[in-house]
Amino acid sequence: MATTRLLISCPDAKGIIAAVAGFIVEHGGNILYADQHTDSLSGAFFMRVEIEGDGFGLTEATFADAWQRVADRFGMTWRVYWGTRLKRMAILVGKEGHCLTDLLWRWSTGELTAEIPFVIGNHDVLAADVSRYGIEFHHEPVAADNRDEQEDRIRRLLRAGEIDLVVLARYMQVLSPGFVADYPAQIINIHHSFLPAFAGARPYHQAHERGVKLIGATSHYVTHELDQGPIIAQQTSAIGHRDTVEDLIRKGRDLERVVLATAVRLHLQDRILVSGNKTVVFE
Amino acid sequence: MATTRLLISCPDAKGIIAAVAGFIVEHGGNILYADQHTDSLSGAFFMRVEIEGDGFGLTEATFADAWQRVADRFGMTWRVYWGTRLKRMAILVGKEGHCLTDLLWRWSTGELTAEIPFVIGNHDVLAADVSRYGIEFHHEPVAADNRDEQEDRIRRLLRAGEIDLVVLARYMQVLSPGFVADYPAQIINIHHSFLPAFAGARPYHQAHERGVKLIGATSHYVTHELDQGPIIAQQTSAIGHRDTVEDLIRKGRDLERVVLATAVRLHLQDRILVSGNKTVVFE
Amino acid sequence: MATTRLLISCPDAKGIIAAVAGFIVEHGGNILYADQHTDSLSGAFFMRVEIEGDGFGLTEATFADAWQRVADRFGMTWRVYWGTRLKRMAILVGKEGHCLTDLLWRWSTGELTAEIPFVIGNHDVLAADVSRYGIEFHHEPVAADNRDEQEDRIRRLLRAGEIDLVVLARYMQVLSPGFVADYPAQIINIHHSFLPAFAGARPYHQAHERGVKLIGATSHYVTHELDQGPIIAQQTSAIGHRDTVEDLIRKGRDLERVVLATAVRLHLQDRILVSGNKTVVFE
Amino acid sequence: MATTRLLISCPDAKGIIAAVAGFIVEHGGNILYADQHTDSLSGAFFMRVEIEGDGFGLTEATFADAWQRVADRFGMTWRVYWGTRLKRMAILVGKEGHCLTDLLWRWSTGELTAEIPFVIGNHDVLAADVSRYGIEFHHEPVAADNRDEQEDRIRRLLRAGEIDLVVLARYMQVLSPGFVADYPAQIINIHHSFLPAFAGARPYHQAHERGVKLIGATSHYVTHELDQGPIIAQQTSAIGHRDTVEDLIRKGRDLERVVLATAVRLHLQDRILVSGNKTVVFE
Repeated sequence: MATTRLLISCPDAKGIIAAVAGFIVEHGGNILYADQHTDSLSGAFFMRVEIEGDGFGLTEATFADAWQRVADRFGMTWRVYWGTRLKRMAILVGKEGHCLTDLLWRWSTGELTAEIPFVIGNHDVLAADVSRYGIEFHHEPVAADNRDEQEDRIRRLLRAGEIDLVVLARYMQVLSPGFVADYPAQIINIHHSFLPAFAGARPYHQAHERGVKLIGATSHYVTHELDQGPIIAQQTSAIGHRDTVEDLIRKGRDLERVVLATAVRLHLQDRILVSGNKTVVFE
Repeated sequence: MATTRLLISCPDAKGIIAAVAGFIVEHGGNILYADQHTDSLSGAFFMRVEIEGDGFGLTEATFADAWQRVADRFGMTWRVYWGTRLKRMAILVGKEGHCLTDLLWRWSTGELTAEIPFVIGNHDVLAADVSRYGIEFHHEPVAADNRDEQEDRIRRLLRAGEIDLVVLARYMQVLSPGFVADYPAQIINIHHSFLPAFAGARPYHQAHERGVKLIGATSHYVTHELDQGPIIAQQTSAIGHRDTVEDLIRKGRDLERVVLATAVRLHLQDRILVSGNKTVVFE
Repeated sequence: MATTRLLISCPDAKGIIAAVAGFIVEHGGNILYADQHTDSLSGAFFMRVEIEGDGFGLTEATFADAWQRVADRFGMTWRVYWGTRLKRMAILVGKEGHCLTDLLWRWSTGELTAEIPFVIGNHDVLAADVSRYGIEFHHEPVAADNRDEQEDRIRRLLRAGEIDLVVLARYMQVLSPGFVADYPAQIINIHHSFLPAFAGARPYHQAHERGVKLIGATSHYVTHELDQGPIIAQQTSAIGHRDTVEDLIRKGRDLERVVLATAVRLHLQDRILVSGNKTVVFE
Repeated sequence: MATTRLLISCPDAKGIIAAVAGFIVEHGGNILYADQHTDSLSGAFFMRVEIEGDGFGLTEATFADAWQRVADRFGMTWRVYWGTRLKRMAILVGKEGHCLTDLLWRWSTGELTAEIPFVIGNHDVLAADVSRYGIEFHHEPVAADNRDEQEDRIRRLLRAGEIDLVVLARYMQVLSPGFVADYPAQIINIHHSFLPAFAGARPYHQAHERGVKLIGATSHYVTHELDQGPIIAQQTSAIGHRDTVEDLIRKGRDLERVVLATAVRLHLQDRILVSGNKTVVFE
């Protein structure tokens, strides 16, 4: 059952909630959820409203005109998602399949609601895991001497597929600044540490070397700075002196797949707003 | 800085949020937080609004008259808390001091905002822990042959102290139905298990006997049925085969004090609404 | 690289560790891990020793004769597992595939080391998920009027397959006492609650009805009493008032698959000893 | 009831456990716990044995002579603790009392077994919290111009008090390399972040600035490099976008006191061995 989701950010002011809720009721809408947050440091206001599809008198064609008066009054940045069209998600993978297969499994059960037109692999070892779900698999190997061309090919695929969300499910390749700039807050990565600890390569090796007593995983939006983007979800898990690097890798897989799936679900449900380099997550 | 908190429950309907927010803005109020929840099974709607003290044009004296029109329109049950008066909390204890001293420590740091006119002890071993905070301690031992008189004395103390919230910090005595009925959703108990498992006496012994791999603690409102009231907060902690009953008791203390303090803080901040035998907790 | 695992239980006494370790070194063995536990209530002693394959002078054929002298001295019950033969595991499933596919995925990555000759399904909806791993799928539907015959067929399959471990991955059928008696501490079930809370049918519905603030999952050995067997692993996860029964089911899947996989891994690595109705788990 | 604890590290070799256990039984000792660990990278072997006091034929006076033969054979570094003498612990504090009062409370309940001859405060605000337990409080304020003299005074106090363990319970002062060198693996600090993230000053401010979704606390032995010593225990706790820096500080207090108390308990029970810059913790 389709719902309409309205996401707003603007400077805090008296009367925003009343104005938004009043507008919706005026057009026959029923609010299912309304969450808001004021960042007391910056004075920024964030709001997410989910409106029942039935009975709402505005449509994709008529909403903007009617709404603009409210938006202008408070200086709002806003987006609206009509449940009538599913988001289109592409997954980029390397050799490790645990995050990919977990996402596809959740998608197949209805836990993740999106269209997945294709998966792009830097290697082809996961092709069968993808095609069994009836999803196309593109093998686009990146090497030192073809990096730019391959990225161009990938970007063409994403554009042709009208992709809204790119998920890096242990892709292990750094995207160029131009690529990242084309998809602001639309590329989600999973990093296998509790960032900002152990950014960069081989975080489980770093964790083992340092002798920490917990490992973690972090899902975040990708920005031009490696492992520095806005964090969406994090979890940790206890480890001990008996655990080898291989044990950390094994235990970490369970963290990674849950933390990535959480971020993807929150994004697909339009529950994340970006505020500077942080996220506001309306769960 | 005082804020005004409005708690509402009513049958779900279109336009409630708009009406509430419109009313507040109409009277010059600024909404700091607004949370709502609809129970899809019962169709009940719950809302909590926190309004900035500054600028709000209504007072304890004038609010009800102005508000009644909105309340009547939607058939609301409602309460409003003016930050100008602190809640008055009494703590009842037995011999075990860990929950009591934790509550008093949090209170002394400002984490719990309330007046604590007195603590009532079934034993007197904790008197010094109380009086060092400048709080009165009443020793009211309950025995088989004075149960009714002692409960009467305690109820008189609570009435005389104009107590709003009674916290059973490991009190270990069952209150009579009449006592409980006088304080609906105003008596918070800590039970040292993850209810509904191990209700009743000696839950750590029961847990050890059953061989569970985690222990828990549950804070809940007291109702006439023992350990059956609406649950406010729960946590669990891992244990293993090496843990004796004494280890469970020791590890459990850390759970109990956190879980009880959480419930008390949520209650003092008017974040809990009771819905049948469940709670809606606006964190 | 194969290791030999020796599991011992006996009345506690002085000198057991010295005798066991002395015996192993006498036969050229290198101890990789040695864990022991004394139950202070019952006075029972439990020990698990893992011996490096290389250099150990005893074999499956010669061990028992040599060892009997030590075993007799302390009245030991003991078992020894030679890494030369993998355990043989059968999985029984119903309609819900999340535990099954998780087990098979872990098995395919080498996280679970066993032979899986076949999976038995009460329904056939999961046949393709099984056969893609090259594992046989037997569809053996159980109905009210064929319960005994079907159980006989299943038991014949298990015997023919020389099965050591039966995993009930949301099988949803109760096994007869005779079946259970044939596989003592060799049948692992996953129950979707934190037992002993919400035993029996529809635990997520029970949990939602009661208004708990956490849900859980429990893996345990099956005994003749439903949901009463020795608990191997348990975990819980926080929920809130917004969560519907469907949300609990979704969140619970993540718990169930981790908790079941943990129990299966511990069993396959011979890390579990049963002590009365409890487990000693040497992690 | 006093137990004797023997801690061993040496290069891994066949027969160590047999030799140690054989030696103990030969002298009439009963092993209560025996834990060992081999670091597969370095080939180092670690062992902790806890021996029942009753019946053990060796004493503080006679142990070393008898034991030396075993120790020499395997090139062991070893320490033995006789339960007859409690460890002597000093606590150093700043202005924040939550870790201090938690440690003293646990000590008063018997959860921490040690002598605490005194507490040293850089400020005097916590003097009353200490003296109510009958413990001496020394006010030794450190300023830019008296740093060396004050540290000398503190070191004299520790020597005079025959202190074995120094606990920095939010002391907020950096100790000189000479001080640290005098107490190798005998100074425990609590750092209010999940190290190595947010080392240095104001970790909660750093965490808020970065927008992480969890906060942490780390207890570790102090070495000459700030916040770089071997980690003993770590925990994290979930936070969200609504949490201000003040909320992080409040929530962090609950983590800090548990994580510090855990490390102190493990140390007092001789459960920690240092291996390079890591710890082996036999829980």
